Amino acid sequence: MNRLLLLNGPNLNMLGKREPGIYGVTSLEDIEDNLTKLTESFKYQLDTFQSNHEGELIDRIQQADGNYQGIIFNPGAFTHTSIAIRDAISSITVPVIEVHISNVHQRESFRHTSLLAPVSKGQIVGLGVKGYQLAALAFLEE
Amino acid sequence: MNRLLLLNGPNLNMLGKREPGIYGVTSLEDIEDNLTKLTESFKYQLDTFQSNHEGELIDRIQQADGNYQGIIFNPGAFTHTSIAIRDAISSITVPVIEVHISNVHQRESFRHTSLLAPVSKGQIVGLGVKGYQLAALAFLEE
Amino acid sequence: MNRLLLLNGPNLNMLGKREPGIYGVTSLEDIEDNLTKLTESFKYQLDTFQSNHEGELIDRIQQADGNYQGIIFNPGAFTHTSIAIRDAISSITVPVIEVHISNVHQRESFRHTSLLAPVSKGQIVGLGVKGYQLAALAFLEE
Amino acid sequence: MNRLLLLNGPNLNMLGKREPGIYGVTSLEDIEDNLTKLTESFKYQLDTFQSNHEGELIDRIQQADGNYQGIIFNPGAFTHTSIAIRDAISSITVPVIEVHISNVHQRESFRHTSLLAPVSKGQIVGLGVKGYQLAALAFLEE
Amino acid sequence: MNRLLLLNGPNLNMLGKREPGIYGVTSLEDIEDNLTKLTESFKYQLDTFQSNHEGELIDRIQQADGNYQGIIFNPGAFTHTSIAIRDAISSITVPVIEVHISNVHQRESFRHTSLLAPVSKGQIVGLGVKGYQLAALAFLEE
Amino acid sequence: MNRLLLLNGPNLNMLGKREPGIYGVTSLEDIEDNLTKLTESFKYQLDTFQSNHEGELIDRIQQADGNYQGIIFNPGAFTHTSIAIRDAISSITVPVIEVHISNVHQRESFRHTSLLAPVSKGQIVGLGVKGYQLAALAFLEE
Amino acid sequence: MNRLLLLNGPNLNMLGKREPGIYGVTSLEDIEDNLTKLTESFKYQLDTFQSNHEGELIDRIQQADGNYQGIIFNPGAFTHTSIAIRDAISSITVPVIEVHISNVHQRESFRHTSLLAPVSKGQIVGLGVKGYQLAALAFLEE
Amino acid sequence: MNRLLLLNGPNLNMLGKREPGIYGVTSLEDIEDNLTKLTESFKYQLDTFQSNHEGELIDRIQQADGNYQGIIFNPGAFTHTSIAIRDAISSITVPVIEVHISNVHQRESFRHTSLLAPVSKGQIVGLGVKGYQLAALAFLEE
Amino acid sequence: MNRLLLLNGPNLNMLGKREPGIYGVTSLEDIEDNLTKLTESFKYQLDTFQSNHEGELIDRIQQADGNYQGIIFNPGAFTHTSIAIRDAISSITVPVIEVHISNVHQRESFRHTSLLAPVSKGQIVGLGVKGYQLAALAFLEE
Amino acid sequence: MNRLLLLNGPNLNMLGKREPGIYGVTSLEDIEDNLTKLTESFKYQLDTFQSNHEGELIDRIQQADGNYQGIIFNPGAFTHTSIAIRDAISSITVPVIEVHISNVHQRESFRHTSLLAPVSKGQIVGLGVKGYQLAALAFLEE
Amino acid sequence: MNRLLLLNGPNLNMLGKREPGIYGVTSLEDIEDNLTKLTESFKYQLDTFQSNHEGELIDRIQQADGNYQGIIFNPGAFTHTSIAIRDAISSITVPVIEVHISNVHQRESFRHTSLLAPVSKGQIVGLGVKGYQLAALAFLEE
Amino acid sequence: MNRLLLLNGPNLNMLGKREPGIYGVTSLEDIEDNLTKLTESFKYQLDTFQSNHEGELIDRIQQADGNYQGIIFNPGAFTHTSIAIRDAISSITVPVIEVHISNVHQRESFRHTSLLAPVSKGQIVGLGVKGYQLAALAFLEE
Repeated sequence: MNRLLLLNGPNLNMLGKREPGIYGVTSLEDIEDNLTKLTESFKYQLDTFQSNHEGELIDRIQQADGNYQGIIFNPGAFTHTSIAIRDAISSITVPVIEVHISNVHQRESFRHTSLLAPVSKGQIVGLGVKGYQLAALAFLEE
Repeated sequence: MNRLLLLNGPNLNMLGKREPGIYGVTSLEDIEDNLTKLTESFKYQLDTFQSNHEGELIDRIQQADGNYQGIIFNPGAFTHTSIAIRDAISSITVPVIEVHISNVHQRESFRHTSLLAPVSKGQIVGLGVKGYQLAALAFLEE
Repeated sequence: MNRLLLLNGPNLNMLGKREPGIYGVTSLEDIEDNLTKLTESFKYQLDTFQSNHEGELIDRIQQADGNYQGIIFNPGAFTHTSIAIRDAISSITVPVIEVHISNVHQRESFRHTSLLAPVSKGQIVGLGVKGYQLAALAFLEE
Repeated sequence: MNRLLLLNGPNLNMLGKREPGIYGVTSLEDIEDNLTKLTESFKYQLDTFQSNHEGELIDRIQQADGNYQGIIFNPGAFTHTSIAIRDAISSITVPVIEVHISNVHQRESFRHTSLLAPVSKGQIVGLGVKGYQLAALAFLEE
Repeated sequence: MNRLLLLNGPNLNMLGKREPGIYGVTSLEDIEDNLTKLTESFKYQLDTFQSNHEGELIDRIQQADGNYQGIIFNPGAFTHTSIAIRDAISSITVPVIEVHISNVHQRESFRHTSLLAPVSKGQIVGLGVKGYQLAALAFLEE
Repeated sequence: MNRLLLLNGPNLNMLGKREPGIYGVTSLEDIEDNLTKLTESFKYQLDTFQSNHEGELIDRIQQADGNYQGIIFNPGAFTHTSIAIRDAISSITVPVIEVHISNVHQRESFRHTSLLAPVSKGQIVGLGVKGYQLAALAFLEE
Repeated sequence: MNRLLLLNGPNLNMLGKREPGIYGVTSLEDIEDNLTKLTESFKYQLDTFQSNHEGELIDRIQQADGNYQGIIFNPGAFTHTSIAIRDAISSITVPVIEVHISNVHQRESFRHTSLLAPVSKGQIVGLGVKGYQLAALAFLEE
Repeated sequence: MNRLLLLNGPNLNMLGKREPGIYGVTSLEDIEDNLTKLTESFKYQLDTFQSNHEGELIDRIQQADGNYQGIIFNPGAFTHTSIAIRDAISSITVPVIEVHISNVHQRESFRHTSLLAPVSKGQIVGLGVKGYQLAALAFLEE
Repeated sequence: MNRLLLLNGPNLNMLGKREPGIYGVTSLEDIEDNLTKLTESFKYQLDTFQSNHEGELIDRIQQADGNYQGIIFNPGAFTHTSIAIRDAISSITVPVIEVHISNVHQRESFRHTSLLAPVSKGQIVGLGVKGYQLAALAFLEE
Repeated sequence: MNRLLLLNGPNLNMLGKREPGIYGVTSLEDIEDNLTKLTESFKYQLDTFQSNHEGELIDRIQQADGNYQGIIFNPGAFTHTSIAIRDAISSITVPVIEVHISNVHQRESFRHTSLLAPVSKGQIVGLGVKGYQLAALAFLEE
Repeated sequence: MNRLLLLNGPNLNMLGKREPGIYGVTSLEDIEDNLTKLTESFKYQLDTFQSNHEGELIDRIQQADGNYQGIIFNPGAFTHTSIAIRDAISSITVPVIEVHISNVHQRESFRHTSLLAPVSKGQIVGLGVKGYQLAALAFLEE
Repeated sequence: MNRLLLLNGPNLNMLGKREPGIYGVTSLEDIEDNLTKLTESFKYQLDTFQSNHEGELIDRIQQADGNYQGIIFNPGAFTHTSIAIRDAISSITVPVIEVHISNVHQRESFRHTSLLAPVSKGQIVGLGVKGYQLAALAFLEE
C-alpha cells in the first residue's frame, strides 16, 4: 500500500492553543484527521509524528527511507537551525515537501532562511493549515 | 462571476523552450489551458497575462483591484528585484499567491530572497508547473 | 517661458486610493492641480508625467534636458532600485529635487537608501503632499 | 503666541567661515535673522539655539515640550551618532523637521544614515540654507 | 547569411552628449556605423537595437535565439540590477559578449558587480568605444 | 498555592565542577536548595528541572503553562542557538526571566546575542549564582 | 560609612513623563527615594546623580573611585554609543551594575549591544524600575 | 586500563548507506570494529557511542570526564551548530580530536566553520574513514 | 610668537592612575611639563587643555583656528565615535597630529578605526608618552 | 621602435597542461609566438615575461616605465591578492590591459574581484587565449 | 621508487626557536629527520623543501607533478592568503595533505580560513609535530 | 655597537619617481642617507634593505633577531596583505616600528587595516619622510 508521512516539529503540538493570531485555531489533531481523510480518498495510508526533540525527528526521517512515497514536513523552528535534519533528509531518497502555516517572510528575519529548502522538493508557505493538504495533493496527484 | 488572474513575469513565455533541465517541457500555453479547465470546474473565470515588462505587470496588478478573488503570480526574476511590483501588490486588496516552478533555494543565492513574499498571502515553490494548480486550489477551495 | 517638470514614478497614480494610512487621501490629480496653481503664480509652466514604466521615466528625463529649470521627482520604488534612472539624471543638466510623501526612514530598511540622492540636488522626505510644493518653491524662489 | 524653535548642532556656528565649498558663505546669524523675519510674517515667534554640546541640545529639546508648534533642527554630526538626542525627540510631542544644508548623500558613507530621521516628522536635505525656510514653511502653512 | 546583433541598454542613446569626461564624444550612431563597416568586411550583417526599457531588451534577446552568431551587448545600468535580462540570456543559446565603455571598476562600488557576467561568454571593459570592435572581432575571427 | 519554576539548560548540572574560574564553586544542588528556602519564605513552591536535552526543556516549558507565576531560566548554550525554545516561551503566558551566571558579554562574541531575550520579561547577567535569587525576588515581590 | 552611587544617563529625568508605554509612570524622584530607603535599611548611604551630558557622567564616575562600594548605572542611550564612559568605568575599581528599565532586546537593533557590559560586573534588563532595587540588593547582600 | 571513547554524532549511523559519493561504503560498525582492533593492539579499551540526539551526546561527554585518555569525535552536523556540545567539551579535561570523513571545506559554506575546533585538541579532515585511525594514533602513540 | 596646542580627551586626566599596565605611570601633568620644556627649547609656547566633554573639545578646536602652528591631540575614546570633532578639525586650517599612547591595534576591534585620521595630518600610535614628543618634533622641526 | 610587454603571472606557465577544461590546450609558448607575429605585423616588438614570483613581476613592471607603449598582463591569482602589484602599476605611466582567459565571474567568488582593475586601463575576460590578441589590438590600432 | 614531498612554508625554518609556547621546541631539522625515518621504514623516499618565498613554493609544487605519491604541506601563513599556491595545487594531480602544528582555530580569526583546504585532500590541525607523521601515514598506509 | 635596521617594502625604491603627489620628491637613497646621519650622531649603525619580494623581507627579518635594537619598517602594500611578514615579526624579539609616508587613512579602504600593527611596537603614519626620523628617535632616545 502507498504511504505518506506527516511530520511536525517543535511546538506544533501547541497548534490551536499557541498564538492563534499567527497560527489559527485548528489543532494538530484536526489537521491529522483531515489529512488522513484526504489521503484515504486516494488509497494512501498516512502516518503522523510530532516531536519537540530534534533527535527523534532525525530518527523518524531515517526510518522513513524506502517506506513512504513522500514526507509532508513542518519543521517549525528547526527549519532555521538544524543542519542535522538537513543531513537526515539528504541521507534518504523519499522526497520531502516543507510546509509553513504562517507566512514566515512577514516575521523575524531569522525565519526567512530555511536550511532544509535546498534539500527538499519544494515549499508551501503562508497558506494556513490548508498548506498541508496542498502538499499532500502534490504527492497524491503526481 | 468569480474570477482569478494568472500573471507570469519575464521569460516565462519561454517555458518549455528555455532550460528544460530547470523548468521542464510544459509551455506557458499548456499551463494556461490546464488552469483554465481547473478553474472552470469550480465555476471561476481565469484571465491570463504574461509580460517581460515590469511596468505592464504593475499596470495589470493595479487594474485587478476589485475585479478578482485572487492572483496567481509567478514574478520570475522580478521576485528578487522589484520593489515597484511589491508596492503595486500592497496598493490593492486582492490576495496574491507567489508561485515558483523550480526550487529557487537550490539555485543562486540572489534567488533565495523574495521582495514580494512579505506582501503576498503565501508561496508555493519547487513543485513544478503543478504549483500553479495548487495555488488555484488554495483560492478555489477556500 | 520658464518651466518645471513634475515626475511621478510607479504606483503614485494610486495616491488617494492606496494605503491612505501611509500616503493620505489626496489624489495625484489634486497634487498636479495645486502645483500648477503655485507655479503659475510665479509665471512658470508646469508639465506633469506619471508612469509605472522605468523606461518611460528615463525617456522623459532625457527629453527634459535644456527644456526645464528643474524637475520635481517622486521616483517611488525606483528610488531604491534604478541605477538606470540615476544615470539618466546624471546625463542631463537640469537639477532634480527628490520628494517622498511618507517618512521612508520609518519604513522597511530597503527604503532607507536612495540611489538617486547622490545625483540629485536635494531631498524632501516625510512632509506629505506639501513636500511637492516645498520642492517647487526651492526652484521658484531661487 | 505661536512659537517655533530653531536648533543647530555642532560646528554650525562656523557657517560661513567653515568649508564654504560645502556649506556656502551665509553665517548662522544671517540664517537666524532671515528665519525670524519669515516667521514674524506669519505671526510666529522664533527662538534659536546653537551648541557644540550634545547634552545642552538634549536639555533644550526636553524644555521645548509643550512650548512650541515645531522644531527646525540641523543636528550636524550628531545626526549620525546620537541615540540620546533621538530619545529626547521621542520623549516630547513637538514635531521635528531635520534640515541638512549640504547633500549628505554625496559625502562620506557614515553621513548617509540618520539616527534621528525615524523619530522626526521629515527631512530636507541638500537645498542649502533655503532648507531652513522650507522647513519653517512646512510648519507655518500647515 | 551570418549575423551579429549589437544591443545597447539605457542612456547609451545619450553617448557623445552625456558626461563626455567618462564616455567620450563618439555618438551611438557613429559606433553603429563603424561596427557595421567592420562586420560587412567579414561578410556579416549587423543588426542594432537600443532601448531604455528593460522589457524591450528582454523581448529582443528572446527573438535573437537561433538568428545570430553572437550578441555584442552594453547593458548600461541594467548590468548591475537586471536578473530578468540575465535569465533572458540564459534562455537562449546565442553567446553574448558584455562591453563597457568606461572602466567601471574606477567608479561607484555598485558598478563593480555584473549580474550578467556569469551567463555571458566574456567581458570587455574600459577600452572605450573600441571595445565594441574588439567584441565583434572575438566573434568574427573565431 | 503559588509556584515558580527553576529551569536550567545544558551543562549547568556541571556547576561547581566545570570551569570554576568562570562559574564559581557552588553546585546546582546548592542553588536549588537556597532558592527553595527563599521561595518558601514567600509561601511559594519551587519546582526545579535541569536537562541537557533541548526537547525536554521545550516539553517542560509547554507543561508550565497555567501552572506557574514565573519561570527562572538559565538556558545555557541554548540561549544563543534555540529558536525552538524561543517559540515554546512565546507559546505560553507564564513570564520568563533569563539568568546568566557569568558576564556573557566578556566572553566569545557568539555569547553576546540571546535569541530568548526578546520573548522574555527580562535578563539578569553576570551577578553569579545570586542572579537566580534576584530573579526570584522579581517575581516574589511583585 | 558604606556608600552606593545611583547614576542615571540622558533622558531618564523624563521618567514618568516620557513614553509611559515603554518606561512606566514612576518618576526618577520616586526611584531615588525608594532606593534611598532600601539602602538606608542596610546602613548604606545612597548618592544620586542624573545628567544628559556624557562629560558630566564621566567626571562623576572618575570621582567615585575609592568612595563607593558600587555604582548602579542606567546609562540610557550612552549604553550603545559611549566608549568614553566605558573607559571611565575601566579606569576605576568600583564595580558597576548596568540597569535598563525596558527590555532593550525587544526594541531597535542598535539597542541590543552594550559597549559598557564587558567592563561592568553585570546587567539587569527589562524588569522595570524594580531593576534598580535588585541591583542595589546585589551590592547590599554581598 | 587505558581507555579511548569513539563518539559519532547525527546521521553517522547511516554511513555506508547514505550518500556514498561523499561518505564512502564503509559502515559505522566496520569503523568501530577496525578501531577496536587498533586500540587493542596498544592495550587500550575502546568504547563507542553514536546518537542523533544532541542531549545524549552531551550526557556522554560529561560522563567521560576522568574515565578516558581521549575522545575521538565526529560530531557530524552538530560541529556547526552546537554551542552546548562545545560547553560540554570545555567542562571536562579529557582531550578531544575532531574527525570529519569528507573534506568539509569542499562543501556548503556553513560546513566550513566548527564551533568545536577552538575547544578541541585538533582536527583531522577529509582523510576518509582512515581519519578515525589517525586520531586514535595521535592518542595511542603519545 | 609660535604656538602649539596640546589637547587631551576623555579619561586622559586619569593617566598614571588608570590601568598602568596599558597606559604607564606618567601623569598628564608630567607629560604637559615635559612637552612645555621641549617646545620652549624651540621658542614655541605650548597651551594645554584636557576635557572629558566632547563639546568643550569642539569649542577649543574652533578657537584654535589662526592661533596655532599645530595641534597635538590625543582624542581618547572620541577617536572612534565623534564625527562632531572630525567636523571641527575639518573646519579649521591648523594641522592636527593624532597621538595614542597604547597600541590601539592590539586592543578591542572598535579601537582600530579612527574617525579623525582622515582629517588629521598623521598619527603616532603605541609609542607611549614619548609619542607626544615625537608629534611635537614633527611640528617644531618642520 | 615601438614595444609591447606581455606579462603572465603565477601558474600560467602551466597553460595547456593545467586544467584544460578551464584553460584550454594552448601552451604559453604558443600564445607568445602568436602574439609576437601579430605585433610584428604592426611593426611592434613584443617582450614576454612569466613568473610565479610576485616580486619578480613587480621588478619587471617597474623596469617597464618609459620603455613600452603598453603592457598586456594576465596576473593570474595575483589579480585578487596583490596590492603590491597594484602599486607598481600605479607607479608607472605605461597603460596596462588585464587579460583573463577564463570567465572568472563563473568561478569562485574570490575571483570576482580584481585589485588591479581600478589602476588598469581595462579588462578582457573570458574570451580564451584570443583575449591576449584583442588586448594587443587595443594598443596596436590606437 | 615511491616518493613523498615534505613542503614547509614561511617561518617554519624558525621552528623550535620561534614562539615555543605555540609551536613547541622541535626544530624543522628534527621533523625532517624523523619523517625520513618513518618513510624509509615504508620504503619511500622523502624529499624536503622549505621556503619563505611564495614563488619558490609554487615552482616546487609545479615540479612535483608526476614525481610523488603525495605532498605533506604546512603552508604557514600562505594558507590564508595565497590563491596562487591554491592554483598550483589545482594544476597538478599529486594529492596534498595540509598540516598545521598549532590549533589555528584557537588563534586570530584570519587563521580560521584556509584557501588551500578546498583543493587539498585533507587537513590535520593542532596535533603538534606529530601531525606530519599522521599525514605521512595517510599516504603510506593507503 | 648598537644597530638599527631600516626596512622598506615593495615599490618604495620608486620614491621620488612614483606619484609625487602622494609620496613627495625625496628618493629612498636620500632617506637612507639622512637616517644614517641621524643614527650616527647617536653612535648607532644603520643597516638598510629594500625589496619588492615578500620572501626576501621575511628572510631579512629573521636574520635580524639578536642583531638590532630596533627595526624601522615601511612595509608598503605588504602592510595590508602579508600574514607571513607578521609571523616573521612575531618570531623575533627585536621591536618594530611601522612607518607610512602618506596618510593611509585618506586613501582606499583596504589601506586602512594593518596586519602588522598588532605585532609591532607602534605606528607613525602620514608625517612624510620625516616619519622615518621620528621612528628612529623613538629607538635612539629610549
